[in-house]
Amino acid sequence: MPDRDHCLALDAADPLRAFRDEFVLPEGVVYLVGNSLGALPRRTAERVRRTVEDEWGKKLVGGWNASGWYAQPLTVGDRIAPLIGVGPGQVVAGNTTSIAIFQALAAALKLRPDRRVIVSDADNFPTDHYIVQGLAGLLGEYEVRDLAERRFDDAAVVLLSEVDYRTGARQDVAAVTAEAHAAGALIIWDLCHSAGVMEVDVSAADFAVGCTYKYLNAGPGAPAYLYVNPRHHETAENVLSGWFGHAEPFAFETDFRPAEGIRRFAVSTPHVVSFAALDAALDIWERVPMAQVRAKSKALTSLFVELVGDALELVSPADPEARGSQVSYRHPDGYPVMRALIDHGVHGDFRAPDILRFGFAPLYTSYTDVHDAAATVLEVLGKELWRDEKYARRLAVT
Amino acid sequence: MPDRDHCLALDAADPLRAFRDEFVLPEGVVYLVGNSLGALPRRTAERVRRTVEDEWGKKLVGGWNASGWYAQPLTVGDRIAPLIGVGPGQVVAGNTTSIAIFQALAAALKLRPDRRVIVSDADNFPTDHYIVQGLAGLLGEYEVRDLAERRFDDAAVVLLSEVDYRTGARQDVAAVTAEAHAAGALIIWDLCHSAGVMEVDVSAADFAVGCTYKYLNAGPGAPAYLYVNPRHHETAENVLSGWFGHAEPFAFETDFRPAEGIRRFAVSTPHVVSFAALDAALDIWERVPMAQVRAKSKALTSLFVELVGDALELVSPADPEARGSQVSYRHPDGYPVMRALIDHGVHGDFRAPDILRFGFAPLYTSYTDVHDAAATVLEVLGKELWRDEKYARRLAVT
Repeated sequence: MPDRDHCLALDAADPLRAFRDEFVLPEGVVYLVGNSLGALPRRTAERVRRTVEDEWGKKLVGGWNASGWYAQPLTVGDRIAPLIGVGPGQVVAGNTTSIAIFQALAAALKLRPDRRVIVSDADNFPTDHYIVQGLAGLLGEYEVRDLAERRFDDAAVVLLSEVDYRTGARQDVAAVTAEAHAAGALIIWDLCHSAGVMEVDVSAADFAVGCTYKYLNAGPGAPAYLYVNPRHHETAENVLSGWFGHAEPFAFETDFRPAEGIRRFAVSTPHVVSFAALDAALDIWERVPMAQVRAKSKALTSLFVELVGDALELVSPADPEARGSQVSYRHPDGYPVMRALIDHGVHGDFRAPDILRFGFAPLYTSYTDVHDAAATVLEVLGKELWRDEKYARRLAVT
Repeated sequence: MPDRDHCLALDAADPLRAFRDEFVLPEGVVYLVGNSLGALPRRTAERVRRTVEDEWGKKLVGGWNASGWYAQPLTVGDRIAPLIGVGPGQVVAGNTTSIAIFQALAAALKLRPDRRVIVSDADNFPTDHYIVQGLAGLLGEYEVRDLAERRFDDAAVVLLSEVDYRTGARQDVAAVTAEAHAAGALIIWDLCHSAGVMEVDVSAADFAVGCTYKYLNAGPGAPAYLYVNPRHHETAENVLSGWFGHAEPFAFETDFRPAEGIRRFAVSTPHVVSFAALDAALDIWERVPMAQVRAKSKALTSLFVELVGDALELVSPADPEARGSQVSYRHPDGYPVMRALIDHGVHGDFRAPDILRFGFAPLYTSYTDVHDAAATVLEVLGKELWRDEKYARRLAVT
């Protein structure tokens, strides 16, 4: 069993160790919730201040040109592209993951007018499935089929996540993409739990979406992104046809005329202040070797699994290749257990009804963090500290 | 003709004059583009810093509860409500105006399933009309009828702006709402150019939308808002049925079950950093007597019209009651004229093909500003300074 000194040695040899200093990390806490909200990069506050005070404050409406605000959906999209294995001019940033899913789904259905089935994973993060239901309800005449049936032959589109938010289980993007295409279906990947912790490659897929506030560290509610395969750029329609997707937004034409390329999927005015924090976060990603990130991610999750051992029931796949960068366990009293862990300095989160999640962000989580977190888990469980009644009461949101 | 001393006296007697000190205004410039992007409130930078460094940086994922991020769409919506004449629990903030229009339109069409006509103003700000076209294209079987036909009798919904972005002409909200309802149609008001400069009252309407980055001063790309009349809260559907609109977002149920009340129109994770700037801007609006704002707005626009006189062809209504807080003129060489004005310290904007716009934000525009701006307009036109070839070349975006 690796002891703390061994973990200190692993940290000393970690090629990514310098990145940890680029983040603001809380004192006395092991933060294992980067899969929900990434930590604050040190550079972000100044970048946001600059946008507010120097750009908006001094240039006012001139900032749209002078500070590149207009171009943000595309320039920032181009900075995200390498993180998901696609090229420039293929990603547009903005809005939210839910809205990007709606755009991708609506476009996919129009591209497959002869089919009336949407395959969606009922175990996917709920918003994905809810958006499918909302669109199907609006259009009528669509069947929403659960992924579990594994039948794509009459499907217009398949929507699923590369990494499951609850279990951390990882799909084989290449294989499932090929399977969907062989059946004549289009495919949309949700990358919320994979981008930033592994080498993602959705270049064969039709669409992909993701958020930037988890492993990408762009801040609470940071803009999402939408990838559209270039083979669809001339034919796919953006149902949220706002003026930023128009061929000439400032011609103020009466009729919508889609822009060339990915810009037709822009909707409207970008959230500039939130974009500033995203742009700052991407400064870090430019320097990150993703193969090292994935290697460290697997090592961190494996170490945690090894150290926790049988103290908790593992829900995530045991094979590190088959999971993302989180480890989930099942516990019938998961809620008080997680509250006790947080009270003892280990921040994970709880997902109803009985899942404990621990996310490992390779840029700022150390091997020693993993050691200390596992030790606390063993102590809280071994001494049944979670049975203290103060942990039983539900907080408003967990 | 009022001279500069008279304008100084008007400023001294202005009951709103103290508000000017709450904004960062550029040196040596008269900024008349508050109808496009409002000026930076002095309090905003610290409010945004707090959200980034103290909330996100220190509380991390705990900020969702501890800093009220989850509730932002509703708490901030409640702060916007008084500005548009409606009550608490009726406005949700977030996303963009275009997206809010899409939500309102889709909901309205579902509420009027027996009708197949959308009335939209072809002269409205293009994104409004484009969103109508996008939704109609997705659904098929809908006719988009121009407002100019003035025929509502078979319309499902009517969408128009209280104040026209180009001319500043103001619609009579009460009368047109009654006209639409008498014809059995629902009505959606776009308040982008009216909220913050007049006493808006859409309480009889079915839906209303607006942005917050113009007269409300919430910053570039700040979150938009959506009002839904309480009579529709139980029946209207949110087609963008993301998890924030679910009755129990953290129950992670498989099927979408809409929340009670306005929250069903929330979509997904709010753009928290952009919300911080919006929240700061609303601190000011709590103290603003809107009747005084409207009185000053009419006085400012009237003064500008009087001082500019026949030097430019007025496009806006001559009656101040019939316009918003902007004055628009037509000039065949509008582009170089506006560039010359900006070069001489008067910032308005140009809208193709030939419109010069000047917006007056009563919280920070003074009577002396109006005097000085008009004097510059007369000089630039009188001496034909705009004919200098350096003003002829088009910039990338105008």
